[in-house]
Amino acid sequence: MAFYIKRMTVIGLGLIGGSLARALRRKALVGEVVGVNRHRESLERAVALGVIDRFSTDPEDGVRDADLVVVATPVRAIVPTIARAAPGMMRGAVVTDAGSVKGRIVAACEAVMPQGVDFVGGHPIAGTEHSGVEASFATLFEGSRTILTPTEHTAKDALELVTLVWEATGSTVETMDPLHHDKVLAATSHLPHLMAYNIVKTLSDLENDVQSEVFRFAASGFRDFTRIASSDPTMWRDICLENREAILEMIGRFGQDLQTLRDLVHDGNGDALHQIFSQSRATRDRVLKIGKG
Amino acid sequence: MAFYIKRMTVIGLGLIGGSLARALRRKALVGEVVGVNRHRESLERAVALGVIDRFSTDPEDGVRDADLVVVATPVRAIVPTIARAAPGMMRGAVVTDAGSVKGRIVAACEAVMPQGVDFVGGHPIAGTEHSGVEASFATLFEGSRTILTPTEHTAKDALELVTLVWEATGSTVETMDPLHHDKVLAATSHLPHLMAYNIVKTLSDLENDVQSEVFRFAASGFRDFTRIASSDPTMWRDICLENREAILEMIGRFGQDLQTLRDLVHDGNGDALHQIFSQSRATRDRVLKIGKG
Repeated sequence: MAFYIKRMTVIGLGLIGGSLARALRRKALVGEVVGVNRHRESLERAVALGVIDRFSTDPEDGVRDADLVVVATPVRAIVPTIARAAPGMMRGAVVTDAGSVKGRIVAACEAVMPQGVDFVGGHPIAGTEHSGVEASFATLFEGSRTILTPTEHTAKDALELVTLVWEATGSTVETMDPLHHDKVLAATSHLPHLMAYNIVKTLSDLENDVQSEVFRFAASGFRDFTRIASSDPTMWRDICLENREAILEMIGRFGQDLQTLRDLVHDGNGDALHQIFSQSRATRDRVLKIGKG
Repeated sequence: MAFYIKRMTVIGLGLIGGSLARALRRKALVGEVVGVNRHRESLERAVALGVIDRFSTDPEDGVRDADLVVVATPVRAIVPTIARAAPGMMRGAVVTDAGSVKGRIVAACEAVMPQGVDFVGGHPIAGTEHSGVEASFATLFEGSRTILTPTEHTAKDALELVTLVWEATGSTVETMDPLHHDKVLAATSHLPHLMAYNIVKTLSDLENDVQSEVFRFAASGFRDFTRIASSDPTMWRDICLENREAILEMIGRFGQDLQTLRDLVHDGNGDALHQIFSQSRATRDRVLKIGKG
């Protein structure tokens, strides 16, 4: 199915927004690309890099006459940005976002959409250790998954367009209820990231004599475990604030399992420990097989 | 400094023991290599692979006339194995182990050494995702670190020999007090591994509707985080039982930090969350720099 977007506005020109613009341009699926950002410098760099054609620092001005508006700002900025941009949106425009939390955001965005403008919640699951428009590249989404979160208010045409856009980048698109999305991501992404941050905090608070050795002998476990603790602090703060309920539930479950594990170590219950470790290994192997399939 | 071992006995012929034998053979630093294992099949495979010259399934018999005895069994088997082998040990022999826990093991091994036989506790920090003598290779220890844990009872000559042996494999050798070793490893290796196991357990106990999605959408965070949860369950059970105190202390500290994190998420304290995430990222970057240095 072919599509062509005459004018696309990308609000929040970082890794995700920049890579989406590059991917669509490379396939000649978009005419003009307008960038909107708070900081003028990254907009100027984006023009120099050929990622966008022109820019505005004002969301309302930047979205004028855009057929598609993609909001790829940090999570907490999505709703206020869309609210500010709303008066400038063209009747018939489709608006989507790229936030890693969906429940509250989708509900709030739907509420501020002007008459005749459709919103579709989106979450491209992609990224690198680098951020910023300079780090963007056209193939970022190839082989990735994108979750779209339509609701009873989502127009079928709008969902279809956003689906085609992400598929054109090489991503596989699936749909999910917004709150269900938040639970799944709390489990697979938010909990692991927060536990990685937490373990680094625990280690950095150790007494000096142990800590210096800890840092020198950081074993492979520590490296693997903490790789994901080097992500953007602002993004993770926002995720914690926006996906509060699902994250609290996952932390609560993890904390209960931790207490059980602690008791088994305390009691020297080798059989029960062996069983937990065997099951976890089997589960992990199964998960990775499913992930590959 | 040159050394030559006329006869070396390796008890527990898996990845570590097999790789050590291969490394020393390749450099012609050892004459005869005798293997001791509970299972005859892996001994026969080890002969076929050229890792050992001959074998015994009886530790006391296997260590006769050996200049160096290396015990590379699972952690819990080290002390009983050395106790069984002790009557066969030659006066002047040096005994070392490769266990990832040292405090209790070193004390117990020193207690069972016959007159004129010296023990040196050791921990080569190396491994792969594979196990067994078939997975062993001569360069496993190149670029690794080995911690030796001499005590006031350790003979200087014995420490020197074991140091030379591990250095000959390409490992960098450092010495550490046995209990200090256990604290450092509890922090850098045992805690991260146990938290990885715990998170997999938490996710596998989720309700079916969420769990199936969790498995399909296992994000990169989950993969990185759980890579270390696929290690050998027996090894981790033994580590929990043998390094109980240090592990309980680390779990306790981690649990307190987790409670703080939970409260900050619950209260929506974005500033404090941002600060924790920023500090953890900075700490991790620092650790990896030190690790590389």
